[in-house]
Amino acid sequence: MSASEPSFRGVLAAADRLKGRALVTPLLENAELNALVGGRILLKAEILQHCGSFKFRGAYNRLSRLSPDERRRGVLAWSSGNHAQGVARAGKMLGAPAVIVMPKDAPAIKAERVRADGAEIIAYDRYTDDREIIGRRIAAERGLALAPSFDDVDIIEGQGTLAVEAVAQARDLGAEFDRFVIPCGGGGMTAGCALALEELTPRCETFIAEPQFYDETWGSIASGERKRADSTKPTLCDAIATPAPGDLTLPVMRRLVRGGAAVSDEDVKAAIRFAFKYLKLVVEPGGAAALAAVLAGKIDAKGRIVGVVLSGGNVDLAVFAGILSETR
Amino acid sequence: MSASEPSFRGVLAAADRLKGRALVTPLLENAELNALVGGRILLKAEILQHCGSFKFRGAYNRLSRLSPDERRRGVLAWSSGNHAQGVARAGKMLGAPAVIVMPKDAPAIKAERVRADGAEIIAYDRYTDDREIIGRRIAAERGLALAPSFDDVDIIEGQGTLAVEAVAQARDLGAEFDRFVIPCGGGGMTAGCALALEELTPRCETFIAEPQFYDETWGSIASGERKRADSTKPTLCDAIATPAPGDLTLPVMRRLVRGGAAVSDEDVKAAIRFAFKYLKLVVEPGGAAALAAVLAGKIDAKGRIVGVVLSGGNVDLAVFAGILSETR
Repeated sequence: MSASEPSFRGVLAAADRLKGRALVTPLLENAELNALVGGRILLKAEILQHCGSFKFRGAYNRLSRLSPDERRRGVLAWSSGNHAQGVARAGKMLGAPAVIVMPKDAPAIKAERVRADGAEIIAYDRYTDDREIIGRRIAAERGLALAPSFDDVDIIEGQGTLAVEAVAQARDLGAEFDRFVIPCGGGGMTAGCALALEELTPRCETFIAEPQFYDETWGSIASGERKRADSTKPTLCDAIATPAPGDLTLPVMRRLVRGGAAVSDEDVKAAIRFAFKYLKLVVEPGGAAALAAVLAGKIDAKGRIVGVVLSGGNVDLAVFAGILSETR
Repeated sequence: MSASEPSFRGVLAAADRLKGRALVTPLLENAELNALVGGRILLKAEILQHCGSFKFRGAYNRLSRLSPDERRRGVLAWSSGNHAQGVARAGKMLGAPAVIVMPKDAPAIKAERVRADGAEIIAYDRYTDDREIIGRRIAAERGLALAPSFDDVDIIEGQGTLAVEAVAQARDLGAEFDRFVIPCGGGGMTAGCALALEELTPRCETFIAEPQFYDETWGSIASGERKRADSTKPTLCDAIATPAPGDLTLPVMRRLVRGGAAVSDEDVKAAIRFAFKYLKLVVEPGGAAALAAVLAGKIDAKGRIVGVVLSGGNVDLAVFAGILSETR
């Protein structure tokens, strides 16, 4: 049985379950980046996690808590791609068949890798269909457990494990975070990390970076009213273009998130180029949102020790080559 | 005073000097890579070192051993680029002015970053000029100490520190290397690493990967005769296209290197694309030579634990975008 609310205790239990299954991703530092922002930036490189994003953490934690019978029948998830890959890989590791409801226009690399892990894909049109309705119907018909992409206690707690690692890794470098900046879609990673940071390093402030037009989470926190994004707006950041924060994630974020920034496609492209040139890392648009916010000066890092999550690296080759080719 | 021959003891002394100055680069693992080669590959990611390559290690070790008077006058190095950056950065850290003799056609990113660290660049034509003659003349005129790119005890011992780290990091993962594969130009990194591996994990076999047409080091080891490469041949691997192994590096490599492979430009491009797609890492052609040899099956990893050095990531944006855009 899962608790009804995510907790720090749950994050620690997830960290135990993930031991030896998830990768311990490195916390990286770069002299050029530090010099540019006038602070000390420690990059939690979740692009190096299984399947190229942090999503494996939550997915594995969720699936590992299924009963033997549920596991045998399988799981269903809807996802723009990274969560799908995490669920497919966790399903493969744990012997649970996975069905993924995925937008037709998801990056090809994400669909391809879901298939490589043996999952079944059901495609939908993200401008006209409701993936949740489709997903719930199929899950009911086939008796599949759901693995929601963010609004789920096990998912939130699984994602929070990256902050547990990051705090310990920072201490190994003699550092305590003043701020921790997280790319934010539905808020699963943010809520989980914020719960961990609150206990482990209480003076650290949690910040979120959202795409322009999809900054309804910070809007919902700052205004006290539940906002929704207009999901017809175009953005490069497919992985975090969610229309609204979750019912479980929003209360945690309201309590613990101290600031937010909206990054433009241009901010994100500049961050991707910086990561290529100086960090030697491949970061996808949504995964670069936190770095983009810091590089654009939208979240101030001057004189501070700032954790920045690089949350995913699954970008299509043509898109990446296109971004590199644009000169500024 | 430096010893006349590189030694394991010297590598350990270098590791002490580099503590807190060089970055401890991560040892990375990837499920897709393991599955593809049927072994366990542990990637020493020196692309994440200061200035994007392992070269900072040797440069810092060399420069830290200059007398105060030598340091004040400054150092000179000739280099296709990565060593230049390492010397420039080490010079900046230690307050030693640096002069770099660099080919006119070195990747723009390398020249740009050398200048950013305050070094002076003297350009030469690598098809018609002899960089060593130019360098020695200027060093004599200005009273500069030399920082050779590979054939120097301090340089060799500095580069070897990466193997000391890698062996300890592998043990943290419960692994001992069966093989350790190193991109090889003049042999500084290879000789230093081989000396460390011999003592720290004696059953590990050291392998080198060289570019096609520039595989004279393995040729020199295998034949017992000193070979020279035809340095007019084109190769993508600018960083390791050296015409001959060094006088100090070759005897060490003869004693300790167990095998070698020559990789084609196509092998290297495939490795760069694999690193982009699955590893989320930016690797330059020369830096990808060891990975290319393993992926192409030229060095067998089946059923083995294999350390692979990703030695550098300084590739021009246009070159990288071009490699990504080629379909296979």
